[in-house]
Amino acid sequence: MTSTTLSIVSELAEIVGPANVLTDPDVTAGYVTDWTGHWSGHTEAVVRPGSTAEVSAVLTACHRHGLRVVPQGGNTGLVGGSIPMDGEIVLSTRRLTTIERVDVVDRTLAAGAGVIVAQAQEAARQHGLDLGVDLASRDSATLGGIVSTNAGGIRMIKNGNTRRQLLGIEAVLSDGRVVTRWKELVKDNVGYDLPGLLAGAEGTLAVITRVLMRLVIPAPRTQVSLVAVTTVSDALQLVDRLERAGLTLEAAELMTRPGIDLVRRHHDLRAPLDVDSPFLLLAEVSGQRDTQALLLDVLEQAGESVLDAAVEEGPAPKLWRYRESHTESISAESSTPPVKLDLSTPLREVEQFLTTLTPALAENFPDVRAICFGHVGDGNLHVNLLDVKETERERVTDFVLRHVTQHGGSISAEHGVGRAKAPWLALGRSPEDINLMKSIRAAIDPAGLLNPHILPIR
Amino acid sequence: MTSTTLSIVSELAEIVGPANVLTDPDVTAGYVTDWTGHWSGHTEAVVRPGSTAEVSAVLTACHRHGLRVVPQGGNTGLVGGSIPMDGEIVLSTRRLTTIERVDVVDRTLAAGAGVIVAQAQEAARQHGLDLGVDLASRDSATLGGIVSTNAGGIRMIKNGNTRRQLLGIEAVLSDGRVVTRWKELVKDNVGYDLPGLLAGAEGTLAVITRVLMRLVIPAPRTQVSLVAVTTVSDALQLVDRLERAGLTLEAAELMTRPGIDLVRRHHDLRAPLDVDSPFLLLAEVSGQRDTQALLLDVLEQAGESVLDAAVEEGPAPKLWRYRESHTESISAESSTPPVKLDLSTPLREVEQFLTTLTPALAENFPDVRAICFGHVGDGNLHVNLLDVKETERERVTDFVLRHVTQHGGSISAEHGVGRAKAPWLALGRSPEDINLMKSIRAAIDPAGLLNPHILPIR
Repeated sequence: MTSTTLSIVSELAEIVGPANVLTDPDVTAGYVTDWTGHWSGHTEAVVRPGSTAEVSAVLTACHRHGLRVVPQGGNTGLVGGSIPMDGEIVLSTRRLTTIERVDVVDRTLAAGAGVIVAQAQEAARQHGLDLGVDLASRDSATLGGIVSTNAGGIRMIKNGNTRRQLLGIEAVLSDGRVVTRWKELVKDNVGYDLPGLLAGAEGTLAVITRVLMRLVIPAPRTQVSLVAVTTVSDALQLVDRLERAGLTLEAAELMTRPGIDLVRRHHDLRAPLDVDSPFLLLAEVSGQRDTQALLLDVLEQAGESVLDAAVEEGPAPKLWRYRESHTESISAESSTPPVKLDLSTPLREVEQFLTTLTPALAENFPDVRAICFGHVGDGNLHVNLLDVKETERERVTDFVLRHVTQHGGSISAEHGVGRAKAPWLALGRSPEDINLMKSIRAAIDPAGLLNPHILPIR
Repeated sequence: MTSTTLSIVSELAEIVGPANVLTDPDVTAGYVTDWTGHWSGHTEAVVRPGSTAEVSAVLTACHRHGLRVVPQGGNTGLVGGSIPMDGEIVLSTRRLTTIERVDVVDRTLAAGAGVIVAQAQEAARQHGLDLGVDLASRDSATLGGIVSTNAGGIRMIKNGNTRRQLLGIEAVLSDGRVVTRWKELVKDNVGYDLPGLLAGAEGTLAVITRVLMRLVIPAPRTQVSLVAVTTVSDALQLVDRLERAGLTLEAAELMTRPGIDLVRRHHDLRAPLDVDSPFLLLAEVSGQRDTQALLLDVLEQAGESVLDAAVEEGPAPKLWRYRESHTESISAESSTPPVKLDLSTPLREVEQFLTTLTPALAENFPDVRAICFGHVGDGNLHVNLLDVKETERERVTDFVLRHVTQHGGSISAEHGVGRAKAPWLALGRSPEDINLMKSIRAAIDPAGLLNPHILPIR
């Protein structure tokens, strides 16, 4: 350790207690590598404050020493946004675990940023409500983490993104100043949307310490349908029909034939339907007393565009397994760690994007296989590239990100920029837009100390 | 005119053409006073650019001369936010009227900021879609205006606020730089939420020139119910029951007995229901095939909390007249221009706020009458104060804003800060929060030239 490090470690220990400053590499290992194993860095200290005041004192001390800090929640991100790549101090929010209050009239949950998503969901459910966000990492991801990354997930089509669930926020700026906006109001048009700005900022503007989340009513009478279709357009038209019939769309997931075949090989699942179709749509709906009958009628009325369909009543229907087993099957199948790209395109471009991607990849990367699935209601596609050689990772990533940009899409639909997409920021944003973002960052964190590798200002 | 003014007027005329620089006070009169007549200022020039490039050239010229600029859309705001109170140049966006495109697959509308809300709604409806925002000023308000003020309105309970409808934006900064973020994506997690930051900034950060709005499916099978209840709590519980039954809530408006009596006096309407109740709830729902039957069942099951109810099928049901006639009746009734305050409280505080307001006012302002109504699903209350003497306006405003703050509420739910609420900003925001907003403004508009009286930085 350098003398600066020694000095800061003892200073931090005075603030949070020696037990909450981790320096032993064996102990900090879990904080410097992400769960995919792809993003790995190093740190000389992980500090775990237990309150907003401690977070403030920690950041004040780091600011005085000019030390860079990477905030970290559940460390479940997929883009390396919470990893200390260059020896930054890690500020873990995992001790901010207080669920302060669930209000059933205003439908809000007030909690520390370190509360695990599944625990927040459980607290809401005990009061007949639910969090508006759900995602696969629910048992590890924190509320602060999903807010910082503006997480998406399968319920976004109904409830909107995490930013939209955020009513109030408490956060600490890089110099230790605590900023609070906290009114339990859905309508409050006084000044700039500070919570919305901090949501999705990936820890570059502030460390979020407390959040006030909007809660939602659990979906009544959910029904899941798995539908075989020939084209993405058919799938999107069916989604439109469901909505126009008055059904509430809870999820609309797209799968492809190669994806289903892969899942069946690895999970010993039988064919979900009697026909083999290029695409499968998993549509979950909810609604009034005649939801099931209405769903069946809409499927019937869709005519020949529906090749075959299965319907199952919720909660926890088995049809979801075809969709949920994708990630695991892909990891098991690929000879190398899969390259996972989270992209979106306009809905009208989804089909064209998908059908041109495979031949384009085959031409340029003959050994690489692509398995795509996603939240088609949002135009959000998870492109998984299998059997990519280590030396080819960056080149194939670049290739796909340029492909999606050509289709008017985004290089990151719901995972954020992190380290993974930072080199391609210019594909997603115009130079003026990037300059404006840097101006905002420079105004709030002039030294660029917080998560410095995302949108660096110097 | 001063020589600076003469010079800038001729410079602006070169950019937009002489016909689009208005200097005659008879002609500019409509731009320097708001429609309520309460907010009035003066200007030496109204400039009406016809494209983003012209807006950029205009702002570049004003920036060079250090001239302050007030952007203005339909001038329908209620808080004086678009009025040149101190002789600022008025930049009117009303010539940016191109509806570029409606996309039915992605459900988006691309348009100039000067497009009137009703025209945008009509364009969407021609394609079987609708704008997610509706408000009383629809025939005059512009898209740029509702975005700049993050307008609310009666559909917010279903669709969210205007910020949520905004997918992309083009805007010009105070120095003429054009910033564009424009992807037709609901999911695009690349960097800070620039559209969300400019929405609700009331023209203090940039002049919005083009917007990309999300469209929604028109509500199927709307049913309106007018329900007599004894307490706000009964009204809120009924709203909860409707939602839990699977009905989609399109609007939930609260009226009071004095408000209904006033409306009936001025509009010759018969009593809407057979009982006289302290509160009336107007709930509009939509949904599946059994919407009407389900609505009736829910009203039945609510038991004694529903004193009486009327149900009518949409669209354009007559029951809405009781709610929509409030504004006009209030203006007709009051001996002085009514003080109109747009407030919100947490839902659990609505009842307490309302029941304590009347005696508190009576004690301090014996001649003043209050008529309250609002979007109760959002906790949004429009407090109208009648017979307020000119000399008492500020004091009674201060009184009510402090009252709502004591109940955890907001001094502006959906109208914004403008000139009207600027003196009370500290009731709505903490000092650290205000400082942070000023830092952001200073980073984007360092000289504070755009709409300088809202959130002044110097």
